Amino acid sequence: MSDAVDLPLIGAAARRARAASRVLRTLPTDVKDAALSAMADALVERTDEVLAANALDVDAAAADGTPASVLDRLRLDAGRVAGVAAALRELVALPDPVGDVVRGSRLPNGLELRQVRVPFGVIGIVYEARPNVTVDAAGLCLKSGNAALLRGSASAYRTNAALVAVLAEAGQKAGLPEGSVELLPADRASVGELLSARGHVDLVIPRGGASLIQRVVREAQVPVIETGVGNCHVYVDASADAAMAEAIVLNSKTHRVSVCNSAETLLVHRDVPFLPRLLAALADAGVTLHGDPAVVEMAARAAHDAVVPATDEDWATEYLSMDMAVRVVDDLPQALEHIARWGSGHSEAIVADSASAIAAFTAGVDAAAVLVNASTRFTDGGEFGFGAEIGISTQKLHARGPLGLPELTSTTYVVTGSGHTR
Amino acid sequence: MSDAVDLPLIGAAARRARAASRVLRTLPTDVKDAALSAMADALVERTDEVLAANALDVDAAAADGTPASVLDRLRLDAGRVAGVAAALRELVALPDPVGDVVRGSRLPNGLELRQVRVPFGVIGIVYEARPNVTVDAAGLCLKSGNAALLRGSASAYRTNAALVAVLAEAGQKAGLPEGSVELLPADRASVGELLSARGHVDLVIPRGGASLIQRVVREAQVPVIETGVGNCHVYVDASADAAMAEAIVLNSKTHRVSVCNSAETLLVHRDVPFLPRLLAALADAGVTLHGDPAVVEMAARAAHDAVVPATDEDWATEYLSMDMAVRVVDDLPQALEHIARWGSGHSEAIVADSASAIAAFTAGVDAAAVLVNASTRFTDGGEFGFGAEIGISTQKLHARGPLGLPELTSTTYVVTGSGHTR
Repeated sequence: MSDAVDLPLIGAAARRARAASRVLRTLPTDVKDAALSAMADALVERTDEVLAANALDVDAAAADGTPASVLDRLRLDAGRVAGVAAALRELVALPDPVGDVVRGSRLPNGLELRQVRVPFGVIGIVYEARPNVTVDAAGLCLKSGNAALLRGSASAYRTNAALVAVLAEAGQKAGLPEGSVELLPADRASVGELLSARGHVDLVIPRGGASLIQRVVREAQVPVIETGVGNCHVYVDASADAAMAEAIVLNSKTHRVSVCNSAETLLVHRDVPFLPRLLAALADAGVTLHGDPAVVEMAARAAHDAVVPATDEDWATEYLSMDMAVRVVDDLPQALEHIARWGSGHSEAIVADSASAIAAFTAGVDAAAVLVNASTRFTDGGEFGFGAEIGISTQKLHARGPLGLPELTSTTYVVTGSGHTR
Repeated sequence: MSDAVDLPLIGAAARRARAASRVLRTLPTDVKDAALSAMADALVERTDEVLAANALDVDAAAADGTPASVLDRLRLDAGRVAGVAAALRELVALPDPVGDVVRGSRLPNGLELRQVRVPFGVIGIVYEARPNVTVDAAGLCLKSGNAALLRGSASAYRTNAALVAVLAEAGQKAGLPEGSVELLPADRASVGELLSARGHVDLVIPRGGASLIQRVVREAQVPVIETGVGNCHVYVDASADAAMAEAIVLNSKTHRVSVCNSAETLLVHRDVPFLPRLLAALADAGVTLHGDPAVVEMAARAAHDAVVPATDEDWATEYLSMDMAVRVVDDLPQALEHIARWGSGHSEAIVADSASAIAAFTAGVDAAAVLVNASTRFTDGGEFGFGAEIGISTQKLHARGPLGLPELTSTTYVVTGSGHTR
């Protein structure tokens, strides 16, 4: 039952997507897979067209003084186009979640009960100036039987429009209904329309930084999945092996600083004897340490200049940079208390050899992922073997952690009788 | 990471509940089960105290001119108190979902991956003047390891306060932490606080009529599960058996008219020869029929006076009464179109003997439950064998259909390595 919502900017696209979704939910896997292959082929064939559109976006962004790192994410080349095409082909190899029977039984009265995976219907994706998301998100939505309403950044609009034109044309030739992939206008107001479009969109997933996600969560009247804010901790227990702790802390912090599963705060048990060495290793790797008083004092004794005093702001910050907050805790409960207060529920790691400490940490941490003697960087759909992910959920409803294809589906109970009444 | 939210009415209770939730998530099943048994015993022992409080609420409501049907739902007696106590004891027998391993594997690099069920944390329940919900909801939340923030109707406040006092005291004696069950003030503004309490409450479930649910969905900044609005259809295909169709339509409509899984609209294929008989059976059962022109004409020929002309309003209405809208459709796609436009995604039934019609209906309907040759009344946690339900979800995110104990949990990925880095 669609609520009456006025959607001047996105209404036409949303109606095409809804109509498409009613066909998509019934398509067999081989039709969807053939369409994904055809889309991948078309992207490669029409690379020049995509790159020409992208050059206009990149030039305009550069003229606006856009920072180099943002320009780099916006810029496509033949290799990157081939990369997104290859990602579509990888989806072909993954199992189709639609039609999976999640549970089934025969009830005592003879009714056959089956809970079956079905597509959501229409999924909206709101994202920033990364054109690869356009193709990735469209592919994931289609493989799971959903129509995609894509709302990318204005600065990538020409690129996204070229990509969607290629995808839609190839998809329709291969048997997908019109409206399966729709690019929404990049007007500022189109996000608001999407978030209010009850009955028109079944799920919205924001992919981007904290401010985008906060806006989506606060404004949305449609169901959303929060993704990607990671204020992740590594706790080094008194029982930890020194070399393992050093390797995991360094990897969690420095392997790739700009991603949500990198660590931001190090919590160290006060009985850990090798903290000075750990701090030195981080400093040597180029990490600026924001320390509590115990850490600052230790650094002063060791004449480190890589330590600055931490404030509450540091415990709360997702640096996404070569910075790390460091606190010495009295015991494991204090570490759990710190994580409960400051963590974002993404990934929390413990380095320990004590089974009871590991059990207490695992039971006590409330997060999408708990990593035991492993780097926080492992919280990832690819690393988990999901084959593809549309983001990492930090909410508890529906799906937590990496979102693969099954997480892009809902379920229906199919109850089959032979004239059963109550 | 709790957002800063000002909660003058519910803040203290919410903080106690959060503290309790951190203990509840680690409690073994036997402690929770012992507490549920103790609560059941205490309710029976302290029935007089509960009934005294209830009498005050009932008298005040009666003096306010509250309708008899509402008074009946509000009123407790010794039998009803024993009934809610028995429902708590039934929860003891159900499996604890917490700790279930949803999936698990060893990754190629040797990491052990397990997805484990964990409690949500703090669950808010907003409901109307039905004191049994206080006990049912508290029991379901506790068994699944969650603290419960209960926001019942002002008219039942004294009853609810007495019930929660009994539950909390018995629970704490049996080892539950303080704050496991909290009754919120019944001030009008307390619902708004609950719905805005990001970081304090992990999930809110409204239990009540359409207007309550709409308010919750529109205002909520916290995750919610929509429950219980059911504009359910029965479609009678040309291939249907006459007797089966009559039994299922009558049962779906008249077995209990005030509940969400009762049918509101009958869709009949134009080639069904027994429509006059079906309409007569409904009329004989006391159902007022709201018919499309074909039905009105048929009724005029048969001199029925139980048929009034239907408008779009009728297709949209969840009557919850002895009324039924009736439409003759040209074919199954037209029935699917009608359901897509007017249905609420709750329960949709088909009566048919044609396997292809059944397959097309099952694939084409987007609802929590599709019933094949069975009454819509079977969409129910008890009927499905879940043992208990907190409501029937009509949303696609997280859980669809009857919500049992597993639906009151989230999951955590536990990743165990031996010093793994990327």
